[in-house]
Amino acid sequence: MSIQSAIDALIPLLGDRLSRSKADLDAHGGSETHFASAPPDAIAYPRDTNDVSALMKICAAHNCPVIPYGTGTALEGHTLAVRGGITVDMRDMSKILEVHPEDMDVVVQPGLTREELNTELRTTGLFFPVDPGANASLGGMASTRASGTTAVRYGTMRDNVMGLEVVLADGRIIRTGSRARKSSAGYDLTALFVGAEGTLGLITELTLKLQGQPEAISAAVCGFEHIDAAVQTVITTIQMGIPMARIEFIGTDTTRACNAYSNAKMPEMPHLMVEFHGSDAGVTEQAERFGEIVADMGGTGFQWATKTEERNALWDMRHKAYYACLALRKGASAVVTDVCVPISKLAQAVEETRADISASDIEGPILGHVGDGNFHAILLVDPENASEMKIAKDLSHRMVERALKMGGTMTGEHGVGLGKIEYMAQEHGNAWDVMHDIKQSLDPQGLMNPAKMMRKN
Amino acid sequence: MSIQSAIDALIPLLGDRLSRSKADLDAHGGSETHFASAPPDAIAYPRDTNDVSALMKICAAHNCPVIPYGTGTALEGHTLAVRGGITVDMRDMSKILEVHPEDMDVVVQPGLTREELNTELRTTGLFFPVDPGANASLGGMASTRASGTTAVRYGTMRDNVMGLEVVLADGRIIRTGSRARKSSAGYDLTALFVGAEGTLGLITELTLKLQGQPEAISAAVCGFEHIDAAVQTVITTIQMGIPMARIEFIGTDTTRACNAYSNAKMPEMPHLMVEFHGSDAGVTEQAERFGEIVADMGGTGFQWATKTEERNALWDMRHKAYYACLALRKGASAVVTDVCVPISKLAQAVEETRADISASDIEGPILGHVGDGNFHAILLVDPENASEMKIAKDLSHRMVERALKMGGTMTGEHGVGLGKIEYMAQEHGNAWDVMHDIKQSLDPQGLMNPAKMMRKN
Repeated sequence: MSIQSAIDALIPLLGDRLSRSKADLDAHGGSETHFASAPPDAIAYPRDTNDVSALMKICAAHNCPVIPYGTGTALEGHTLAVRGGITVDMRDMSKILEVHPEDMDVVVQPGLTREELNTELRTTGLFFPVDPGANASLGGMASTRASGTTAVRYGTMRDNVMGLEVVLADGRIIRTGSRARKSSAGYDLTALFVGAEGTLGLITELTLKLQGQPEAISAAVCGFEHIDAAVQTVITTIQMGIPMARIEFIGTDTTRACNAYSNAKMPEMPHLMVEFHGSDAGVTEQAERFGEIVADMGGTGFQWATKTEERNALWDMRHKAYYACLALRKGASAVVTDVCVPISKLAQAVEETRADISASDIEGPILGHVGDGNFHAILLVDPENASEMKIAKDLSHRMVERALKMGGTMTGEHGVGLGKIEYMAQEHGNAWDVMHDIKQSLDPQGLMNPAKMMRKN
Repeated sequence: MSIQSAIDALIPLLGDRLSRSKADLDAHGGSETHFASAPPDAIAYPRDTNDVSALMKICAAHNCPVIPYGTGTALEGHTLAVRGGITVDMRDMSKILEVHPEDMDVVVQPGLTREELNTELRTTGLFFPVDPGANASLGGMASTRASGTTAVRYGTMRDNVMGLEVVLADGRIIRTGSRARKSSAGYDLTALFVGAEGTLGLITELTLKLQGQPEAISAAVCGFEHIDAAVQTVITTIQMGIPMARIEFIGTDTTRACNAYSNAKMPEMPHLMVEFHGSDAGVTEQAERFGEIVADMGGTGFQWATKTEERNALWDMRHKAYYACLALRKGASAVVTDVCVPISKLAQAVEETRADISASDIEGPILGHVGDGNFHAILLVDPENASEMKIAKDLSHRMVERALKMGGTMTGEHGVGLGKIEYMAQEHGNAWDVMHDIKQSLDPQGLMNPAKMMRKN
C-alpha cells in the first residue's frame, strides 16, 4: 500500500490520462501565492464521474492521497500536494450538461470555468453571477466557497449551488440537493461540501442558480479623502436598502497600482467602484440616491460609466488589481489576507490595518468587497527573505486577531487551505473538533486533500 | 441507565423547572397534524445554555432521549416523544440578547417567536423576514429550515441564520458561524444544524440577518380561470426579474375555505396573492409590470391593497388558510403535504395533484408559495378512519413521487420528522447513508430527537 502501488494500479484505468511528466508535475505543484512548491506524484485527467469513482477506489485501496484541481488559482495553497499522491485535474470534465432557462438553473461539470459558462449562457438572457476575479473553475469555486465582487447582491457559492454530485473517499457517488429552489429534506449536504476544499470528497457535478441579465446596468467610480468616508458611504447605502450589485473599495496604494498597470488616471486616494442592476427606472433611481450619499460624504471625481466598454474597462481594471499590486514590486510574491468583519467595524478594521502596514517595512495595498465587510491586503514580499516573510505573517496575524475580536472571520472567501489552519482553533473553538469528527466519519483514512483545513496529525 | 434514572438526576439540577404534570406531558405529546400522541416522560424548562449543557450531560450519562420543543407548531410530528425521554421546552429561553442595527443582525435565544422578535424590532426600522405563517419559535424555525410566504425574496432559514450556539449530545457547547456576512473558514456547521431537526444537537442561540423595513409596500390579489394561467404569471414575473416579496397561490377550494373562515368575497377560482417591497417608484413600477402580465394571462378581479389595514387583512387571511381548510370539515385532522418542484414543472404538478384529489373520496384544498415552486395540499381526514387515512397517504405518496420525478423534493419547508422518513432513501439515495454517518459521529448514542429523519433501527 503506497502511492507507487496506487499509480501502478491507475495506469490500466487511465492510460495516457495519467501524467507523470516533470513539466506537468511542476505546473500542478505551484500556486499563485507564497507557498513552497509541492508537486504530486501523478496527475489524473478523468473524463467522467465513473473515472473519478474508480480512481478513488484504487487510491483508497492503496492509501494514496488525492488532491482536486481546477485552474490552480486558489490563494491558500489548496492544490499543493504536500503529502504527495494523485492530483485530479478536472480539465476534461468541463461540459455544460443541462441548461434549464425556465427554471434559471444549469448543470455543469466541475472543470468548467465561470467565464466559459457565461459565454455559453449569453444567448439565454441568463448569467452566473459569482465573480471571484480569477477565471476559476466552478468546482474549485464551490470547494473554497468563493465569492467576489457581486456577493453583496447575489451571494457567494453557498447561495448559488443548488446541488452536487460528489465522489466520496471510498469511491461511492452521491447526489446532494435537487433542482427545487428550497428543501427541508434532511441535512444540508450541499452546504457541507461547498467550502470543504476537497477534504470530504471530489465534486463531479454542480447544479447552479442563474440570474436574469439585468435590463439596465450602471457603474461608477469616485474618490474619498479618507477611508472612513468611503466606508460610511457603503454603510449608508446598505442601510437605505439601495440594492448594489457591486461595491468595491480600493485604497490609495491600490489606486496607484491600478493607474500604473491599467493606465487609469484616478487621483491617488481611496476609491469606491459601484454597480447597479435593474430596470431602467430602478437603476436611475438607485444611481441618483447613491450620488446623493457620495456628495454628503464628500466624495469627489464621481463618474458614471454608462457605456458597456467603459464598464468593462472599469471591472477589468478591478479584476487585474491583484496583478497590478504584485507589479508594484518586481519579482515579489504575495501574502494575501482576506478578513471579513461586521460592516459597523469595517472602517476601523481597514484603517488599523493600513496604519499597521504603513508602520512596517513592506508594502501592502488594500482592496475589498466592502459591501460584505470583506477586504484584502496584498502583502508584497520576497519569499526567500525570512525577515520580510515574518513581517508579512505578523501583519496577517494581527489582521486576523483584529477581525476575530470584532466578531468576524479570518477568511471571507479564500478559504483555509494550508495558510489559515493555525487560526482554526481560535476562530471556531471546539466547533473545529466537530469538523474533525465529520472529516473522520467521511474520510477515515485521511486521503482527501490531506494537510488542508484540519489539525496537523 | 434509564429514563427514570435521568429524571432522578435532573431534579436536583432543575427543581420545579422539570415538569411531570399530566396536563403538561399531554400538551407536549400532541401535534398540529394527524400523528398519534406521544408524551415525554418529563419536560425541562432550561433558563440558559449552561442548564441545557448540564441537562444534556445527565441525559447522555443515563442514555435518555432528548427532544427540543419551541411552540409545537411543527407539522411532521417533530416534537413527539416517540421513544419517551425529556422534552426540552425553550419557553424560558426567549430573550433578545443583542441588536446590531448598523450591521442589520440580531442575537436571540431559541424560544423567542418571530412575531415577538418583529414587535421588538419595530422601532429600529428593521425586521426579520422569514414568515412560515405560524408564530413559531426561531429555534424551531431554524431546526426545520422553515420558510413561508417571503422566501421568494428573502430566502429561507438557511439564508437568514448567520451563526448558532449549539449544545451537542455530550453536553459540549459549540459556536458556529460569525457576525461576518460571509466566511470560507471551514465546514459550514451553521448550515448543518439548520434543518437537522434537533437530531444533532440543541440550538441555544441564533444570530439572524435582518432586513430594512421597505419604504413602500404594495399587495394585490387576482383570480384566474385556470391554475395554468396563475402559474404562468408567476414564471413570467420571475423571468422578467420583477422582485416579488411574496407570491402565493390558493386553489379554488382554498379560496372557498378562506371566504368562509375570513369573511372574504373572492370569486371561487384559483387566486394569486402578491406583494412588492421597495422604494415608492420601484414598487409602483413593479406593480405596473405585474399588472400587465396578469392582464396578458387573463387574470381578473385585480385589486391593490394599498392601505396597511387592507394588506394586513389579506395576509391574515392567507396565514389562517390552514385553519380555514381544516374548518371545511368539522373535526377533521390534516395530512399536510409539502412538495417543491422546479418552477417549470409547477403547473403540471399542481394540476395533476388537483385532479388526483378530485378523483378521491376526500377533500384536499391546495395552496402554495409558488415563487419557490412549493405547494401544499391539506388532506382532510378523520384519523380514526383507516380507509381515509390510506387515501390521504396514497395521495401524499403520489405527490412525492411526482415531485421527485420532476427533480424536486418531498418537503420544501416542513421537514422530515416522523412523516417523511419513508421517502428519504428515494430522494437521497446513498446520500442518506452519509447523513447517518454524520449522525453517528455527533450523536453515537442516538439520543437527539430519536426516530426522526433517520432510518428506523
